[in-house]
Amino acid sequence: MDQEQLRWLFEQVQRGDVDVDAALARLRHMPFEDLGFAKVDHHRALRQGMPEVVFAKGKTPEQVAAIAERLLANGPNILITRADRNCAELVTGTLPCGEYFPLSGVIRFWRERTIRGKGRIAVVCAGTSDMPVAEEAQLTAEVMGNEVDTIHDIGVAGIHRLMSYRERLTEARVIVVCAGMEGALPSAVGGLVSCPVIAVPTSVGYGASFHGLAALLGMLNSCASNVTVVNIDNGFGAGYVASLINRP
Amino acid sequence: MDQEQLRWLFEQVQRGDVDVDAALARLRHMPFEDLGFAKVDHHRALRQGMPEVVFAKGKTPEQVAAIAERLLANGPNILITRADRNCAELVTGTLPCGEYFPLSGVIRFWRERTIRGKGRIAVVCAGTSDMPVAEEAQLTAEVMGNEVDTIHDIGVAGIHRLMSYRERLTEARVIVVCAGMEGALPSAVGGLVSCPVIAVPTSVGYGASFHGLAALLGMLNSCASNVTVVNIDNGFGAGYVASLINRP
Amino acid sequence: MDQEQLRWLFEQVQRGDVDVDAALARLRHMPFEDLGFAKVDHHRALRQGMPEVVFAKGKTPEQVAAIAERLLANGPNILITRADRNCAELVTGTLPCGEYFPLSGVIRFWRERTIRGKGRIAVVCAGTSDMPVAEEAQLTAEVMGNEVDTIHDIGVAGIHRLMSYRERLTEARVIVVCAGMEGALPSAVGGLVSCPVIAVPTSVGYGASFHGLAALLGMLNSCASNVTVVNIDNGFGAGYVASLINRP
Amino acid sequence: MDQEQLRWLFEQVQRGDVDVDAALARLRHMPFEDLGFAKVDHHRALRQGMPEVVFAKGKTPEQVAAIAERLLANGPNILITRADRNCAELVTGTLPCGEYFPLSGVIRFWRERTIRGKGRIAVVCAGTSDMPVAEEAQLTAEVMGNEVDTIHDIGVAGIHRLMSYRERLTEARVIVVCAGMEGALPSAVGGLVSCPVIAVPTSVGYGASFHGLAALLGMLNSCASNVTVVNIDNGFGAGYVASLINRP
Amino acid sequence: MDQEQLRWLFEQVQRGDVDVDAALARLRHMPFEDLGFAKVDHHRALRQGMPEVVFAKGKTPEQVAAIAERLLANGPNILITRADRNCAELVTGTLPCGEYFPLSGVIRFWRERTIRGKGRIAVVCAGTSDMPVAEEAQLTAEVMGNEVDTIHDIGVAGIHRLMSYRERLTEARVIVVCAGMEGALPSAVGGLVSCPVIAVPTSVGYGASFHGLAALLGMLNSCASNVTVVNIDNGFGAGYVASLINRP
Amino acid sequence: MDQEQLRWLFEQVQRGDVDVDAALARLRHMPFEDLGFAKVDHHRALRQGMPEVVFAKGKTPEQVAAIAERLLANGPNILITRADRNCAELVTGTLPCGEYFPLSGVIRFWRERTIRGKGRIAVVCAGTSDMPVAEEAQLTAEVMGNEVDTIHDIGVAGIHRLMSYRERLTEARVIVVCAGMEGALPSAVGGLVSCPVIAVPTSVGYGASFHGLAALLGMLNSCASNVTVVNIDNGFGAGYVASLINRP
Amino acid sequence: MDQEQLRWLFEQVQRGDVDVDAALARLRHMPFEDLGFAKVDHHRALRQGMPEVVFAKGKTPEQVAAIAERLLANGPNILITRADRNCAELVTGTLPCGEYFPLSGVIRFWRERTIRGKGRIAVVCAGTSDMPVAEEAQLTAEVMGNEVDTIHDIGVAGIHRLMSYRERLTEARVIVVCAGMEGALPSAVGGLVSCPVIAVPTSVGYGASFHGLAALLGMLNSCASNVTVVNIDNGFGAGYVASLINRP
Amino acid sequence: MDQEQLRWLFEQVQRGDVDVDAALARLRHMPFEDLGFAKVDHHRALRQGMPEVVFAKGKTPEQVAAIAERLLANGPNILITRADRNCAELVTGTLPCGEYFPLSGVIRFWRERTIRGKGRIAVVCAGTSDMPVAEEAQLTAEVMGNEVDTIHDIGVAGIHRLMSYRERLTEARVIVVCAGMEGALPSAVGGLVSCPVIAVPTSVGYGASFHGLAALLGMLNSCASNVTVVNIDNGFGAGYVASLINRP
Repeated sequence: MDQEQLRWLFEQVQRGDVDVDAALARLRHMPFEDLGFAKVDHHRALRQGMPEVVFAKGKTPEQVAAIAERLLANGPNILITRADRNCAELVTGTLPCGEYFPLSGVIRFWRERTIRGKGRIAVVCAGTSDMPVAEEAQLTAEVMGNEVDTIHDIGVAGIHRLMSYRERLTEARVIVVCAGMEGALPSAVGGLVSCPVIAVPTSVGYGASFHGLAALLGMLNSCASNVTVVNIDNGFGAGYVASLINRP
Repeated sequence: MDQEQLRWLFEQVQRGDVDVDAALARLRHMPFEDLGFAKVDHHRALRQGMPEVVFAKGKTPEQVAAIAERLLANGPNILITRADRNCAELVTGTLPCGEYFPLSGVIRFWRERTIRGKGRIAVVCAGTSDMPVAEEAQLTAEVMGNEVDTIHDIGVAGIHRLMSYRERLTEARVIVVCAGMEGALPSAVGGLVSCPVIAVPTSVGYGASFHGLAALLGMLNSCASNVTVVNIDNGFGAGYVASLINRP
Repeated sequence: MDQEQLRWLFEQVQRGDVDVDAALARLRHMPFEDLGFAKVDHHRALRQGMPEVVFAKGKTPEQVAAIAERLLANGPNILITRADRNCAELVTGTLPCGEYFPLSGVIRFWRERTIRGKGRIAVVCAGTSDMPVAEEAQLTAEVMGNEVDTIHDIGVAGIHRLMSYRERLTEARVIVVCAGMEGALPSAVGGLVSCPVIAVPTSVGYGASFHGLAALLGMLNSCASNVTVVNIDNGFGAGYVASLINRP
Repeated sequence: MDQEQLRWLFEQVQRGDVDVDAALARLRHMPFEDLGFAKVDHHRALRQGMPEVVFAKGKTPEQVAAIAERLLANGPNILITRADRNCAELVTGTLPCGEYFPLSGVIRFWRERTIRGKGRIAVVCAGTSDMPVAEEAQLTAEVMGNEVDTIHDIGVAGIHRLMSYRERLTEARVIVVCAGMEGALPSAVGGLVSCPVIAVPTSVGYGASFHGLAALLGMLNSCASNVTVVNIDNGFGAGYVASLINRP
Repeated sequence: MDQEQLRWLFEQVQRGDVDVDAALARLRHMPFEDLGFAKVDHHRALRQGMPEVVFAKGKTPEQVAAIAERLLANGPNILITRADRNCAELVTGTLPCGEYFPLSGVIRFWRERTIRGKGRIAVVCAGTSDMPVAEEAQLTAEVMGNEVDTIHDIGVAGIHRLMSYRERLTEARVIVVCAGMEGALPSAVGGLVSCPVIAVPTSVGYGASFHGLAALLGMLNSCASNVTVVNIDNGFGAGYVASLINRP
Repeated sequence: MDQEQLRWLFEQVQRGDVDVDAALARLRHMPFEDLGFAKVDHHRALRQGMPEVVFAKGKTPEQVAAIAERLLANGPNILITRADRNCAELVTGTLPCGEYFPLSGVIRFWRERTIRGKGRIAVVCAGTSDMPVAEEAQLTAEVMGNEVDTIHDIGVAGIHRLMSYRERLTEARVIVVCAGMEGALPSAVGGLVSCPVIAVPTSVGYGASFHGLAALLGMLNSCASNVTVVNIDNGFGAGYVASLINRP
Repeated sequence: MDQEQLRWLFEQVQRGDVDVDAALARLRHMPFEDLGFAKVDHHRALRQGMPEVVFAKGKTPEQVAAIAERLLANGPNILITRADRNCAELVTGTLPCGEYFPLSGVIRFWRERTIRGKGRIAVVCAGTSDMPVAEEAQLTAEVMGNEVDTIHDIGVAGIHRLMSYRERLTEARVIVVCAGMEGALPSAVGGLVSCPVIAVPTSVGYGASFHGLAALLGMLNSCASNVTVVNIDNGFGAGYVASLINRP
Repeated sequence: MDQEQLRWLFEQVQRGDVDVDAALARLRHMPFEDLGFAKVDHHRALRQGMPEVVFAKGKTPEQVAAIAERLLANGPNILITRADRNCAELVTGTLPCGEYFPLSGVIRFWRERTIRGKGRIAVVCAGTSDMPVAEEAQLTAEVMGNEVDTIHDIGVAGIHRLMSYRERLTEARVIVVCAGMEGALPSAVGGLVSCPVIAVPTSVGYGASFHGLAALLGMLNSCASNVTVVNIDNGFGAGYVASLINRP
């Protein structure tokens, strides 16, 4: 049926009933390809200007590899998140050019490396244990064409550490801040800079951190007005939105 | 002491030890004025490029008016949020040029109305009951120098309504989406556009909406990658970040 | 004692004190057989017009097999849910005609395959990871005598995918929608159709999905009026009720 | 623009490009009318076969009356839920034929009273305090063309009460069960009958009922397979879905 | 020091300053023996008329065995709960007369078997999966000198099953009811009998059962007035209190 | 229909088919009277040996008075709980012999005052603010024929206070302990005595007491084995079960 | 009985069986006076070295006044917290020397004003709305004999404000930090100083602050090791413990 | 840049612009060393007078060892918490003088053992299962220069046990109390003593203990005014603050 829609669209264009801009606009909302277990959407890049991303958790390595193969046939860059070692071995063993980052569980195919972002994206994490989430954000932002400045281990309990990075922070066009435990770092960073801050609560902590809930609530209640929040451990989402904001 | 810091800074500049750019940069992190019950921070506009905002809830009308008066002596525009009618009467009765919006409880002093935003900000709400929160976002974005396109009452249970606004949505540079109940609208909007979407859960609903918790969780778990979230009913925060993103 | 009740009932019928309809009606609420660790209820089929179902989790494979054997002696079809591989091997190794579906953990004995449903039941899932739950719903609806139309991977963030299935959806007499993360799909589907929609939150997601709580709350707060909800991951319950609704 | 869509559609029909069935089908997904603060959707009756419903809470009496007036111009029956006495006075004072039910807060315009349901809908409540929710369900089911059998005050702690209604319950084609506190009644009713049971948790109770959460969780975990659940106190939703299920 | 207290007490008795009843009463609140990692309290039997109980979880098998050995030197019966197989092997291998019940994880030393209870204690469970908790209650009540009547697998969704046990239930002097999922059985049992009912929520269930929370809340909100509740899976506590109630 | 059951039962007795004991036993599970909005159950006293209780919250004063009038026609004692002053005025103004206790909101008709309990019931509360709940328990236990010993204001932070009541506590046959905040008193009392302790969490406290949740959780986790728990603020339930336990 | 204990104790002292130190030590754990509704404990000052405190919420003004009168007869200073205006009028109208602080609801009788603390206690609050809680802490610390340094309105989003108070903070011997919303200030302060920090979450905020829960969780998860936490809005507790720490 | 700051600072001192005290004060807030994945802060000892602590969970053994090595080069004592056996083997195998405590998972380098505390710190735990947390507190307090008195297994359900330690408790200058389940011990201890009590909720328990939440809430609501709380299982934090309080 999609085929018919397409044929009809192109006939309209041919007849002059629809001009090219309108055709493109309509195309943006239409077709996708059916793999049976997942709709692979080759137009997303067109629609959102971004590479496709595969969330590996809950999928078999074979499913991930099959989806990745299709996507790589249609675009240069893809990102696979939350892949364990088994999945990574199958995917990088089957498909060329993939690189696996075990800390964050990301597999990245980064074949087209043009810098498209207007400014720099800073990715900051509060503690060593938050690094996997920060890495996911960093890899995402890079594959989407951004220069990324990563800063590790600057918690609010050591404000002097934070202050020493003030200049690098104020030079960023958007900042991703990953923090677990009390999740206070985004507020502190947000108060220092005038750009948007994307806060990523991490599940780092124990006891009353309740797997990231404490950090999440803290960030949602930030007294800094330039802070928005994504899901717990969602480094990918933060890197993605940061890239959108950083577009010229 | 702040006085001393300032004098010292200017002496350094006079002596040539510090050039003007560096002086400005350092100034960005320093002084504020003491009212006793609240530190009024006149440099925030400089530091964040934004007007000062007063959160009226939990303050007496007299406190709000006193803070507002000081702020108006230092900058053209201010926003007072969550003001009830008593507060509004005192403030707009005492200080000229203030406008009260009873739906959202905002008092706005909008004396400098230059458009600074690069594109348009769309503010969307799912139902009639979400309008107070959407209005807070809209008034914030306007006072911060943006053209705002507001779209009301397009819930996910009536996708045809949403689809009919597709073009206006895709023309926005950033979109604020306010929704209560299941909070699904940001995902649906996010899937249609390629710009950042700021989701505002509202406390609209009853029973298992748990005062906005259902919408909040829904938005944090959005399957659309371009969605970030602010606190429940935080229209101001959404309008603020949208303005930051929309800066050229 | 049940024996006595039965004898007494039949004597009453014999004496003409009770006519056949009344006897059947009363029978509907009475007997069951005692295995020691579980009351096996052979009249459930009569009482509810449905095959018996065994929830395998928390039972030993031996217990499951013993219950299944008894049930198979009294009715043609049974469903065993949440069975792991060990359980499946014992049950299908011991009892003929059983089929194991490892994705959902269902063992199905489907010896009587008459179609009894009036219309078609659609089983929809939002993402690849929701498929186990959707399969449980599908297998249940089938064994209860229904034609099932399964549609995978149509999330709200890609509304064009959903819209392309509009016709298949509107042709169903009842729809089961399985979704994790923000759980928004039932609202979107519910708004497109005029039949009942049974929403199944799944535990798919991470962080603030809280093992399906976010989806559950979202679905309970659906702004579509034709949506009811079952427990997290309860594909069986959804398929069961869908079958009841689809009875002529 | 909707006007254009419609003209274009009818022209296609006139030209024979589109036949009537297809036109109706397409119509089902399109137009609505704009009141500024709420999209009034006259096609919902066509699309879902049901009258329009207005949720009064969070709207001013004037808004409710304006929406109701428009809807009454396009269809015979409407339902307004969660209306307080002020709202009811304005609406029934302005618009003829409206009836107010203070217990549930429903205003009903029931001008077209054909019975369309195939069987009878039973509406059951566990205690006297659950009656407002049960009434909302009953009024909804009636206005949607159903014969309703209401049964009050049969809790699980008095099983003999429940058993005495067994016959009336088994004669229903679908049953709505409203219960607060431990919310156990749907399970007990569900076990007695073979039709679908729609459970409505109510906020009746205190302490660890947590405003209906205990009842909600209880119902979601029902060991009776024929139970689905709607939001806390959502009598309307239950009556609505019951009506859909009861359609021939 | 305890030695001193004792000496002083006995000297007072010798001198006639304290009579025997008073001495016993005071003794009830005093001495215990120190193992270093746990205070072993040999007077508990005297103080509460009950054998000592060891909660094995979180203790090493060696610790459990050492505590058990000491206790067995001072009293005939002890109960060890939540013991895994390793612990059971060490304890029953080291100390004679211990019996291990793997379903519930109880190790019981039952050397003194006098029946002390006035009536019979019924232990009821809703489903096969609740049997481990019910067994813990049963073993506790037995070791404390009670005749126990166990009834398995009578859930509220099959009221006829429950009704068939009505007589056995009404003959009990106190009833322990173990149920997971919606936890409705205690209400139904409570309504049938006039004796105290002790409800034990079990962690049986999935999804929105939240590891027994749904059952716990349901039981706390029971509409039957004769129901009290113990912790999730706390079969021991229920058996213990039932024994206290059953004392003549 | 109940009439028929009754006639049939008495005819059976007349014919000698059923003896008197059996007839009484069967009667225990049958009839009730219909007021339309509430099933008044006159056999509860027979069935549970206890007077009827009316929960006034959520009922109109008129409903309460009507139910009370019927109940008083059938038994000497009734208890109305959670009645506000309006309700109390109507009820005590209409019906003779009622006494209102404003602290707890109880209205008591106590016309038959025989002491039936075997021993004494102690009702203990931790602080002055817990007294309303304790009073509800006390009034309930008294009207059910028990001698009650009330002890106020003995919290765990002043153990010497608690210890000074040790003797009165050990003399009770069952103890009701009401406590808010951390809810630790039942554990401390439970450790001092060998009788059953019924713990009533109260909603006294603020902040992280979460309206009694902290106390409730504390009591459910009591390390004293003789503690069971009822709902938050459920003084009635505690007094009721204490009375059942105290029966000879 | 207490009288007897006392007589016995003094007789022992007289006989030389007990020396004075031992007598004082034993006295520390004994007597209190009975007002019927509250045990007034005059020895607390002796036992804890602190004045008595009355929590007014949940007590009638008359109860508060009666307790206060007794306490004032035995000690110079008392503190009444959470008193509304009615209560304050009765208490300060009846008893001389009381001062009411409407912001925090404290009534203070401060007749003995010796400074006993070794150093200074700093009381810090994050925002203007946190001032009531901070005032409660300040008044408590003062009445317990401490010099208090109060610092208002220094949130983490304006680190330069915080840094400007660094010296005053480092000079304190213990710091109380009151903050609502994300509750991040204690971490930031804790990282700057080496003394103990007592964090008081306040219920200031809205939406996902959940009445102080977000701040509470944040503080419990503080990455600064010198932070402990008290209940939400518990300014009194914080001031109390700060005073204990500040004792020489 | 830090180098520059330092040089500049020392030049100022050399020139006499800054005296030594001021220089030290400023130094307190500045430098740290960069390992790439963690900022190692050698000035913390200076700033807080305490050794550095490494939280091992979430770090690789190699990371832990590298951090420890650096820290040991700058100070005599360090503490590594939450280390598993693998980590301990690597660290103690690589670095001399480390001691591993498997119960609590602490690795301690205690090369400088001067007693600095003014009084004694008591560390109390309620049950045998709370010992790991108590050990963490004890080891922390010791390495920070304190004499520690540990008391195990004194729960509130055996008040006589607690009372027998009254004297040891009153002799402490600060008390750490570790308790799981209902978490009532800190209130009971707090009422006996006049020194600060630091409560540590532990995750010991099951069911409604919710991994320490019940204990945490209980402790936050303590009716003893001298109690503050740290995170669940945070023995380290409690020992740390106790040490700060115990400084002369």
